[in-house]
Amino acid sequence: MIRIGIAGYGNLARGAESAISQNPDMTLAAVFTRRDPAGVEIRTAGVPVLPFDAAESMRDKIDVLLVCGGSATDLPQLTPMFARCFNVIDSFDTHANIPAHFAAVDAAAKESGHLAFISVGWDPGLFSLNRLLADAILPDGASYTFWGRGVSQGHSDAIRRIPGVKDARQYTVPVEDALRRVRNGENPDLTTRQKHTRECYVVAEEGADKALIEKQIKEMPNYFADYDTTVTFITEEEMKRDHAELPHGGQVIRGGATGKDGGHRHVMEFSLKLDSNPEFTASVLAACARAITRMHSRGVNGCKTIFDIAPADLSPMDPAEIRKKLL
Amino acid sequence: MIRIGIAGYGNLARGAESAISQNPDMTLAAVFTRRDPAGVEIRTAGVPVLPFDAAESMRDKIDVLLVCGGSATDLPQLTPMFARCFNVIDSFDTHANIPAHFAAVDAAAKESGHLAFISVGWDPGLFSLNRLLADAILPDGASYTFWGRGVSQGHSDAIRRIPGVKDARQYTVPVEDALRRVRNGENPDLTTRQKHTRECYVVAEEGADKALIEKQIKEMPNYFADYDTTVTFITEEEMKRDHAELPHGGQVIRGGATGKDGGHRHVMEFSLKLDSNPEFTASVLAACARAITRMHSRGVNGCKTIFDIAPADLSPMDPAEIRKKLL
Repeated sequence: MIRIGIAGYGNLARGAESAISQNPDMTLAAVFTRRDPAGVEIRTAGVPVLPFDAAESMRDKIDVLLVCGGSATDLPQLTPMFARCFNVIDSFDTHANIPAHFAAVDAAAKESGHLAFISVGWDPGLFSLNRLLADAILPDGASYTFWGRGVSQGHSDAIRRIPGVKDARQYTVPVEDALRRVRNGENPDLTTRQKHTRECYVVAEEGADKALIEKQIKEMPNYFADYDTTVTFITEEEMKRDHAELPHGGQVIRGGATGKDGGHRHVMEFSLKLDSNPEFTASVLAACARAITRMHSRGVNGCKTIFDIAPADLSPMDPAEIRKKLL
Repeated sequence: MIRIGIAGYGNLARGAESAISQNPDMTLAAVFTRRDPAGVEIRTAGVPVLPFDAAESMRDKIDVLLVCGGSATDLPQLTPMFARCFNVIDSFDTHANIPAHFAAVDAAAKESGHLAFISVGWDPGLFSLNRLLADAILPDGASYTFWGRGVSQGHSDAIRRIPGVKDARQYTVPVEDALRRVRNGENPDLTTRQKHTRECYVVAEEGADKALIEKQIKEMPNYFADYDTTVTFITEEEMKRDHAELPHGGQVIRGGATGKDGGHRHVMEFSLKLDSNPEFTASVLAACARAITRMHSRGVNGCKTIFDIAPADLSPMDPAEIRKKLL
């Protein structure tokens, strides 16, 4: 039995709790929260909810801790901190800061002799793995990542920070024609605008200047300025009824050439269509919990990523069984 | 520089020669043939073509040997034999015999301290990897593998063995409706007949009984009896003009559920669309050549499969670079 702890108790953590219950070789050992534990009600019966500073006392009762927090401020602090007590897995996804986060987690994990996986999930995670495979197998080619149709929580949050906005949901949508050309192996040059559009659904405060909100969204640098963005104002009821879920997905596609004069073309594609982004991400974290305990028991420590995990370590089956059933 | 040898010189070997030339960190060191070397002309200038029994003398000049032969009779003999002198990689694809082949290669490689990868390519290979990932991440679900549209060499050969058949090409074709339902996450129960159809193009000998040939194809157990099969007789010229290439592809798809009452559904798909089956397969072998030399230099030996390879070992980039560029 792999004894798993969860730090934080938001959407991803609830997904992890659910994923653990789907895997007969895993058990939930504890949930850590920075809120008052008395106010946190979890689904699994009989599992303690503890404050962050109780982590030390749970050292011997947890094989791996899933650190479920935001990449902006939570994980840079929490993952190295918890790596001092546990093997840890996070889903850190601020791409530009991965090298710094890796270094901080690696130092903490090595000092305590633990193993840490960072940036696990689907992107970064499974998509990264497929970018690597495609790049290594078809060196003469071009790779493309499309996201959506799905809710981007970062973009939704950015809209919510605009004065006069009560609630917002942003969908990232791949441009069908771009996707079709890439799938066709054309390896086109595509600008940011040509790859994705952004659909925003906004609940405005009463009396807010909707035209100004729309302008502020559409002109927001990095988030929206480089995209064709649509803004639709809706009621709170419509938001609850039509936008309560967190679907997502996307695809990594590589077109490449082989043979004499590159005359043969190949297209590799990995795609995901997800009803619940946090639950699927958590399911990847759970499979990685299996790998981290196996690798740590073989003496591996420090910080690793999905690139360092031999696939067999993710499976509940033993090596002979996976060769027989899945090879 | 990774010094690669190739044993055999058929379609797969020519694909490997081409793949090596696309990877700046690889060089072709020798081609071994069981034919008269004088009669084998290879594309790469200045590379020796040698008889099989010269392998021993090339021990120190080759880091890894790609064993390019058929799974029926060649590889069961050749891969263990060459594993006595070299790290070896093959694309053994007779599913039922993988455990026996694994055992034979493992014993030979361990005895000589070499490392061997068997059953590398796309299926077995990349498809196996995706079956494992999908199964580990979504335990509550169902996986499907579709092949085609593409040329099955085994089925083409089976037709060629029928008396009165001069040449034949068989295409395996997924049933569109089945594919649509699986992609839709319906997890349907599908019989063999409901998943694929088989299209056969046959050149008959002059005076042959075409009706009898068609009947013998359609009733052939294992190969055709369980499928909806069409047989089209064509001329030798049409065969050359329309069926000279070896395209293939397919997809591994898993539909799975997560969350409370399994209320959220997810579909993972890995798909390939290949102009040349042997050249793409060889490109996977070449990437694995990189992994085998790295793993062997770390002291790993015996027989391994794609399930045992950490993805980072397949990439020409160093770990910090792949984290920065691909994670």
